Amino acid sequence: MSTLEESYLVGLIGDGITASLSPPMHEQEGREHGLLYLYRPVDTGALGLQGQAAQDAAPRLLAAGRDLGFNAFNITHPFKQTIMEHLDEVDPDARNLGAVNTVVFRDGRSVGYNTDYSGYITGLQGAIAEPDLGDVVQLGAGGAGSAIAYALLRAGARQLTLIDLDLDRSTARAAALQEQFPDQAVRARPHADLPASLVTATGLAHCTPVGMHSHPGMPIESSWLRPEMWVSEVVYLPVETELVVAARAAGCQVVDGGRMAVGQALDAFGLMTGLRADPERVRRHFLELVARNQG
Amino acid sequence: MSTLEESYLVGLIGDGITASLSPPMHEQEGREHGLLYLYRPVDTGALGLQGQAAQDAAPRLLAAGRDLGFNAFNITHPFKQTIMEHLDEVDPDARNLGAVNTVVFRDGRSVGYNTDYSGYITGLQGAIAEPDLGDVVQLGAGGAGSAIAYALLRAGARQLTLIDLDLDRSTARAAALQEQFPDQAVRARPHADLPASLVTATGLAHCTPVGMHSHPGMPIESSWLRPEMWVSEVVYLPVETELVVAARAAGCQVVDGGRMAVGQALDAFGLMTGLRADPERVRRHFLELVARNQG
Repeated sequence: MSTLEESYLVGLIGDGITASLSPPMHEQEGREHGLLYLYRPVDTGALGLQGQAAQDAAPRLLAAGRDLGFNAFNITHPFKQTIMEHLDEVDPDARNLGAVNTVVFRDGRSVGYNTDYSGYITGLQGAIAEPDLGDVVQLGAGGAGSAIAYALLRAGARQLTLIDLDLDRSTARAAALQEQFPDQAVRARPHADLPASLVTATGLAHCTPVGMHSHPGMPIESSWLRPEMWVSEVVYLPVETELVVAARAAGCQVVDGGRMAVGQALDAFGLMTGLRADPERVRRHFLELVARNQG
Repeated sequence: MSTLEESYLVGLIGDGITASLSPPMHEQEGREHGLLYLYRPVDTGALGLQGQAAQDAAPRLLAAGRDLGFNAFNITHPFKQTIMEHLDEVDPDARNLGAVNTVVFRDGRSVGYNTDYSGYITGLQGAIAEPDLGDVVQLGAGGAGSAIAYALLRAGARQLTLIDLDLDRSTARAAALQEQFPDQAVRARPHADLPASLVTATGLAHCTPVGMHSHPGMPIESSWLRPEMWVSEVVYLPVETELVVAARAAGCQVVDGGRMAVGQALDAFGLMTGLRADPERVRRHFLELVARNQG
């Protein structure tokens, strides 16, 4: 009789997450490592919790999870910001970013991390050996956009231009980032300046929902794409968005939305287990899961 | 890429259970069935909870476990009685017995069962094809004794004699059982009457801690054993108690304490998964675990 394998129990707390691909991605990678690895989605909406009741419940669920033997949690919308004050410790990057998506229990203490930003970097560098971060234009400054802007600056972007339909939002975000990264240039520009900004851009980071199954379409004109720029996509349902297809046709180096989704899972798996997830294996599995969900 | 196996998340809530053999027994049997099966011990003492604080915490842990994706819990000392009032439904036998050791969540509802009593029957019948239940003497009327007395009557014992150093306890227990099983004879006798009671007994159920590593010794005189009687032991650490060894030497059919421990796990596994655990396989694993713990 063999000794039982090491076991990990992980959860995901969020609203509307029953279709999340994180559980099968983590469980499969855990199995590849010979672990007994179980990942449970905890959907506050499905539990009948809304608004403040859900916000009150999230830290209770986290604490109960620790008592019940969970090793770690992923945290997602709408709890990434509010969960922070309930943690014993928060990683400096997650603190700067103001959002936690991963909580690991160590000796009974809860420690928060953000693998959205780190996963974006992991995905970008996994797709492009040396992405030129000299002049990056980012379209969309919402939730995912915040993590990606932070990631781009953290990865060394010399100039980052934030463009959003809501100029107040992009302006406020740019000012906050400029303070955190004083030696790099961060600015906001009106949406009308997008084509002009792209003329000199070394890269375009797309961070709006346009292109999703539920929001089909193109966020920019194809003619604005130049083969010298890389293009990263945040949408991964589908992986082959109109932007990804057009950018590839234009000769751009492309980072599809699956790269960030996989990157955050790779980094979370590493924090939770101390083991290195296999990037190509997890990406293959992710693409199969997406294909199956669409089949 | 294969579809991931079906997953089960189970917990055990109790005080002082870190050395419980239930987690490895369940996890191994789950793996044998091709399940992703994780069983977490939740030790209230290790969580710093004592007395009323622990009693208050147990139903909270149970409810949080349901929300966090647990499929079921085992419940043990000191919560088997007190957890009952917090359940949506209780199996009639568990209700009669006044104790629940297994809670299964079905469509969000908590349903309580007792597999201590049923596991004793499973173990008894697994060891002896047709145990003669005509005149059974039970020594010890405490916690485990309550489940075993109920089991013996439920299995059809025509006469059950309860003997305990505390005659008030055995008398009260006998009266309660007599009411639940009016067509069978249940009586209490003073401890001094044990040898006389054994003269005509078809079986002896031993239900005191005597024989445990921490309480070594013999609960009866070896000379009181007759080859015509079967002997069941409740102690399983060690499996080979002095009573088990003496009874075997006297030519009795013997049901060692591992049978009940395994039986309750078999029955719990069945309730939790709807699958039939393999009795001989689980017993083999149990004996290996006990041997390893002593090594």
